[in-house]
Amino acid sequence: MAPIRLGMVGGGKDAFIGGVHRIAARIDGQFDLVAGALSSTPERSAESGAALGLAPDRCYGNYEEMAEAEAARPDGIQAVSIVTPNHMHAGPAMAFLKRGIHVICDKPLTATMEQAEELAEVIRAAKALFILTHNYTGYPMIRQAREMVAAGDLGTIRVVQVEYPQDWLTVAAEETGTNKQAEWRTDPARSGAGGSIGDIGTHAHNLACFVTGLQVETLAADLQSFVPGRRVDDNAHILLRFEGGARGMLWSSQVAPGNENGLRLRVYGETGGLEWAQEDPNYLWFTPFGQPKRLLTRAGAGAIGAANDVSRTPGGHPEGYLEGFANIYTGAAAAIRAAEAGEEPDLSLLPGLEAGLNGMRFIAAAIRSSQSDAAWVAL
Amino acid sequence: MAPIRLGMVGGGKDAFIGGVHRIAARIDGQFDLVAGALSSTPERSAESGAALGLAPDRCYGNYEEMAEAEAARPDGIQAVSIVTPNHMHAGPAMAFLKRGIHVICDKPLTATMEQAEELAEVIRAAKALFILTHNYTGYPMIRQAREMVAAGDLGTIRVVQVEYPQDWLTVAAEETGTNKQAEWRTDPARSGAGGSIGDIGTHAHNLACFVTGLQVETLAADLQSFVPGRRVDDNAHILLRFEGGARGMLWSSQVAPGNENGLRLRVYGETGGLEWAQEDPNYLWFTPFGQPKRLLTRAGAGAIGAANDVSRTPGGHPEGYLEGFANIYTGAAAAIRAAEAGEEPDLSLLPGLEAGLNGMRFIAAAIRSSQSDAAWVAL
Amino acid sequence: MAPIRLGMVGGGKDAFIGGVHRIAARIDGQFDLVAGALSSTPERSAESGAALGLAPDRCYGNYEEMAEAEAARPDGIQAVSIVTPNHMHAGPAMAFLKRGIHVICDKPLTATMEQAEELAEVIRAAKALFILTHNYTGYPMIRQAREMVAAGDLGTIRVVQVEYPQDWLTVAAEETGTNKQAEWRTDPARSGAGGSIGDIGTHAHNLACFVTGLQVETLAADLQSFVPGRRVDDNAHILLRFEGGARGMLWSSQVAPGNENGLRLRVYGETGGLEWAQEDPNYLWFTPFGQPKRLLTRAGAGAIGAANDVSRTPGGHPEGYLEGFANIYTGAAAAIRAAEAGEEPDLSLLPGLEAGLNGMRFIAAAIRSSQSDAAWVAL
Amino acid sequence: MAPIRLGMVGGGKDAFIGGVHRIAARIDGQFDLVAGALSSTPERSAESGAALGLAPDRCYGNYEEMAEAEAARPDGIQAVSIVTPNHMHAGPAMAFLKRGIHVICDKPLTATMEQAEELAEVIRAAKALFILTHNYTGYPMIRQAREMVAAGDLGTIRVVQVEYPQDWLTVAAEETGTNKQAEWRTDPARSGAGGSIGDIGTHAHNLACFVTGLQVETLAADLQSFVPGRRVDDNAHILLRFEGGARGMLWSSQVAPGNENGLRLRVYGETGGLEWAQEDPNYLWFTPFGQPKRLLTRAGAGAIGAANDVSRTPGGHPEGYLEGFANIYTGAAAAIRAAEAGEEPDLSLLPGLEAGLNGMRFIAAAIRSSQSDAAWVAL
Repeated sequence: MAPIRLGMVGGGKDAFIGGVHRIAARIDGQFDLVAGALSSTPERSAESGAALGLAPDRCYGNYEEMAEAEAARPDGIQAVSIVTPNHMHAGPAMAFLKRGIHVICDKPLTATMEQAEELAEVIRAAKALFILTHNYTGYPMIRQAREMVAAGDLGTIRVVQVEYPQDWLTVAAEETGTNKQAEWRTDPARSGAGGSIGDIGTHAHNLACFVTGLQVETLAADLQSFVPGRRVDDNAHILLRFEGGARGMLWSSQVAPGNENGLRLRVYGETGGLEWAQEDPNYLWFTPFGQPKRLLTRAGAGAIGAANDVSRTPGGHPEGYLEGFANIYTGAAAAIRAAEAGEEPDLSLLPGLEAGLNGMRFIAAAIRSSQSDAAWVAL
Repeated sequence: MAPIRLGMVGGGKDAFIGGVHRIAARIDGQFDLVAGALSSTPERSAESGAALGLAPDRCYGNYEEMAEAEAARPDGIQAVSIVTPNHMHAGPAMAFLKRGIHVICDKPLTATMEQAEELAEVIRAAKALFILTHNYTGYPMIRQAREMVAAGDLGTIRVVQVEYPQDWLTVAAEETGTNKQAEWRTDPARSGAGGSIGDIGTHAHNLACFVTGLQVETLAADLQSFVPGRRVDDNAHILLRFEGGARGMLWSSQVAPGNENGLRLRVYGETGGLEWAQEDPNYLWFTPFGQPKRLLTRAGAGAIGAANDVSRTPGGHPEGYLEGFANIYTGAAAAIRAAEAGEEPDLSLLPGLEAGLNGMRFIAAAIRSSQSDAAWVAL
Repeated sequence: MAPIRLGMVGGGKDAFIGGVHRIAARIDGQFDLVAGALSSTPERSAESGAALGLAPDRCYGNYEEMAEAEAARPDGIQAVSIVTPNHMHAGPAMAFLKRGIHVICDKPLTATMEQAEELAEVIRAAKALFILTHNYTGYPMIRQAREMVAAGDLGTIRVVQVEYPQDWLTVAAEETGTNKQAEWRTDPARSGAGGSIGDIGTHAHNLACFVTGLQVETLAADLQSFVPGRRVDDNAHILLRFEGGARGMLWSSQVAPGNENGLRLRVYGETGGLEWAQEDPNYLWFTPFGQPKRLLTRAGAGAIGAANDVSRTPGGHPEGYLEGFANIYTGAAAAIRAAEAGEEPDLSLLPGLEAGLNGMRFIAAAIRSSQSDAAWVAL
Repeated sequence: MAPIRLGMVGGGKDAFIGGVHRIAARIDGQFDLVAGALSSTPERSAESGAALGLAPDRCYGNYEEMAEAEAARPDGIQAVSIVTPNHMHAGPAMAFLKRGIHVICDKPLTATMEQAEELAEVIRAAKALFILTHNYTGYPMIRQAREMVAAGDLGTIRVVQVEYPQDWLTVAAEETGTNKQAEWRTDPARSGAGGSIGDIGTHAHNLACFVTGLQVETLAADLQSFVPGRRVDDNAHILLRFEGGARGMLWSSQVAPGNENGLRLRVYGETGGLEWAQEDPNYLWFTPFGQPKRLLTRAGAGAIGAANDVSRTPGGHPEGYLEGFANIYTGAAAAIRAAEAGEEPDLSLLPGLEAGLNGMRFIAAAIRSSQSDAAWVAL
């Protein structure tokens, strides 16, 4: 099958996540990057495009120009990846969706709720698909965890402990003048009002909901900015109440030395538990009450279809972050191909608008709660 | 040096913690158990005493009788261990303290705040010592963690994550008629108003304070009783605010399948972090920001005096729960010997009245907060 | 830069390693698969090629035909991946090398020493490059380990413990009629005389040499075939003596239940040690004598250039088997580009003919030693 | 029940293992230390005895004197612990056994085979019991492993991997003049001809046999002394052939930086495997072929009688080295009480003469093999 023609907005020099999206798009050979508005100036965009082997006439100075030109080409892009800072998600997403080009957008949905709502209307009206890269849901053992919960292997869920500690903002990296990632991610104008909760807390929230199949109804949040001068939260402690009575805790932090990317989920039900850690993603602990703990391994003994379907290598041949991310892309490819064939795309495992809006509500609720001294706030 | 003559109140058949106290008292040869009121009836007390090799005339039917008789003997006990259910701590403790007999008491201090205050007065007035077995503070690597924090190895503390999950009350074990532990620990009349927060949450709270040297000022607690019919909390989610600005989370649970005795502490400061887990107590992770993680081992490379002082074996020869518990007893022995010699006992590392009252305040505040829908409550 | 035009011999339906090579070639966008002789019959080759999106006229019925045709095309392949069973490495490799097409060949070099020597002559005479995918040397932390040893961080090496246990041949999978992998890998005619030692023992041997920079001089091997009827070894216990006096042990097994792909290397020198496990490849333990153990993480604190150069994601975003394999491909791409530009390719980190011959000598010596009741045999 | 009156030979100041024996004897309250010949001079023996609270008239200047005097007392010792260097095991053991006093002796049996044979005769003729503290067999999960193998949970055993790396002799600690342990353990006159193989290799060998129930028939050993000037081996690489066809490897080392006391056993059979590590002794991995790995925990889910019988605390309350050691002592106490009551003592789980002789044969065979360039030698 011919690869899907892909464009990219953002992801030029100094970007982190753009390169990740490109590899993820490439791993299974489902996409071919052919166009881009990679940087905020035409010169740098052309330079970045050349480095990536794009044809000069498909390196655009801005996304509007790109959307218009590509939509007009017979061989124009079928889908676009949006990997800009958060405040620059909505604009390009709407521009491409309106022209029938599928959008794969980095999370969170937008920087503000207003942008989110504006974008939501366009997404709902569009024929093209909108996929949000809550990439951690692409990990095979997370897919398996979700399926096990759904199958009742844990009984009714009672307790959900989710955390996402990092340490890279332990010091004021945004003030060194050399760390563009730190700069925009701690700038409310570009990142949105959430700091750690927007950048990583939304991943934690999304993962908890994805695996349990439950929505958070209310939360009580205590946000902190530990580093002097920091304009957004760099640590968040949040109590969660889920529909149906489950309770949880969510911790996100960017000031916890020794934690690189410590997303970790633990779910406990009436009859068993599950534990998973992103840094060791090929393992899933299953702890049926009263029985020995079992270490399930990706594509190994105890792995089920939900995990095997998105595995490339046998057990013991570890897959990682990029493969998990690629599973979102490859799922998106299947959905795009179905949509283009006039079939109903299977979006059941793909994060999209609803996940995005939930994430925005989570950020807004956390901030509102924290401003009210950790009062309970509905999402 | 001759062993200290020790008595015990509680700890007969069906008890769990009594046997632990006896081993802990024995490991370093500092105590000799010579008397007891081990059960609530004279017959069973005598039976239990005989099994332990006590002389028949020193097996008492109740603690009052025992206190009076032992105080009158020239070879009477010098110290007594109180290992009864919580509501039976204050009475015996006061009876012995008033007679000049040192008390080593299981935690929490009492079942109610009223009992605690009454006991506190007696303790303050007594010449005899009062030691509370917050035994987890006896672990060598916990002592080391405390000393490293005090030495500034982590900088100012920002974040404290402490948790204590278990799974043994996942089902209604208190209703089977065969589990005495479950019965009294879920009975407010015997255990106090706190369930998981009193039984294990106090350990978590105590450990966090012991290691950081900080007190919790306010907390917001969301307590649950997941098992139908249970009369006390079996899961607690608590936000913590420490003096000086540090923030934390505390999770205690007895309904988390797969967790046997999962006390775990993580402390993060401006320049580094520490992580410790009770089930693997010979290890302490030290994570100075920007440097590789270091795995410090008890009595091994990187261990310092605070840990070595309470180690019996070289690195790689694991010590466990009983040795940690014994460190409290052996510390108590040194303090008792000093007190009896008219010297000032070193109580700096021994939990006592203050730790006990803090624990009671913690329980009360958690319950009050939870009743107010997780409002902030001062300890 | 335009991708290198790549062909593939082998790797059709039912193959395992062919798919791995294709992903590895794709991850960094350095290769474009455009031709193949994917199966042993023209029909199945065409079918497999179509599934991969190859043009029909570039799906060949056999490698000779393919080599001739591709060499004649102006847009013919620049490099070819050989992913056939071992006895089918030498033929295609020679056919392409003789036509100036670079070869990336799966390990071991060949099935027999005779084939190896014949191939070696052609490789030595060829202008085209020959790369052998001892893929585990592509892991970032293995590159780091090698550099640390070379830098003297461990002092003179004394002890090397390397092992590679698996469990997939615990039962006679080759007799079920449904497991083609098991069939050819236990068939001396296709796999060569070595079973576990050829399939995985050579990886272990190669890794030990790669990291330490030392060659094995002599070995004493005790090979077993535990599964009744098995025609090759499925477990090997080998003593190693390295040049310069280091000693080691090598264990390979395919009958060790619970081990999926447990390649593990431990190296100890006069002043420190290193430990690495393939199933958790983002970690490297560094144990300087007398100091706390340090857990070095890929692209994290303590990572050095040798690892960072072949990393795509920051610390805590795990890379896995496919990325490690891709590092061989991407290194090969750089070497091929240099060679085609008339420059000297940097082959210092790329396994090639020498590694391949060493592997063949290792297999032969192990078999010879085992036949002599574990007598010492020089490689 | 009254404690057994215990004496000790060796174990004065600067000793390591004497203190361990004393704690092990004390933990379960089964022994009371009342006499000793603790050091090699009367003065130091008296000084060490006083520090331990022994009566002055029961601190002896040498073991002969002690044996004679204690045998003559009506309240004389019933058993004696021998914790001297290896060359001083046989003399005291024979002196006490001949007088009907039970002997608990540290391993290995003796320093030389001649001593071993002389001692064996006395043991065989004695009415008193002889227990050898191969203490690692006292660990609960080792007892469980043995029972699981015996019950056929693994099927016929095929492969046994056992190792015991340490690092404390990485440098020439015996030459510093301050390390008495290093001095005698590297002195053939006191330790015997084996270095690492005698000190720790015998533990590894014993553990492999204890768990599998199999004897080693032949071995091929490659011993090294890496540290210049060292008079005994400090690293040993050994191939094992067990009765019935199982094969194994044994590695002992005292020059492997980062390894504190890394005894580790892995056993693989036709249908499953077991893995255990001494430094984390409360865990036992059970890996039935084709099923998820199971982590069995001491006194937790999956623990069986063999482990529970020698556990003091519930799952998650870790027991360690001292408790494992105490299980030997407490087993010895039961056997001694049975013997004194004229009953048949249960020695099925207690190492004694046979284990000791096997250990001596292992040492001798390893040395002989290594001197013959790793030729196969029968035990």
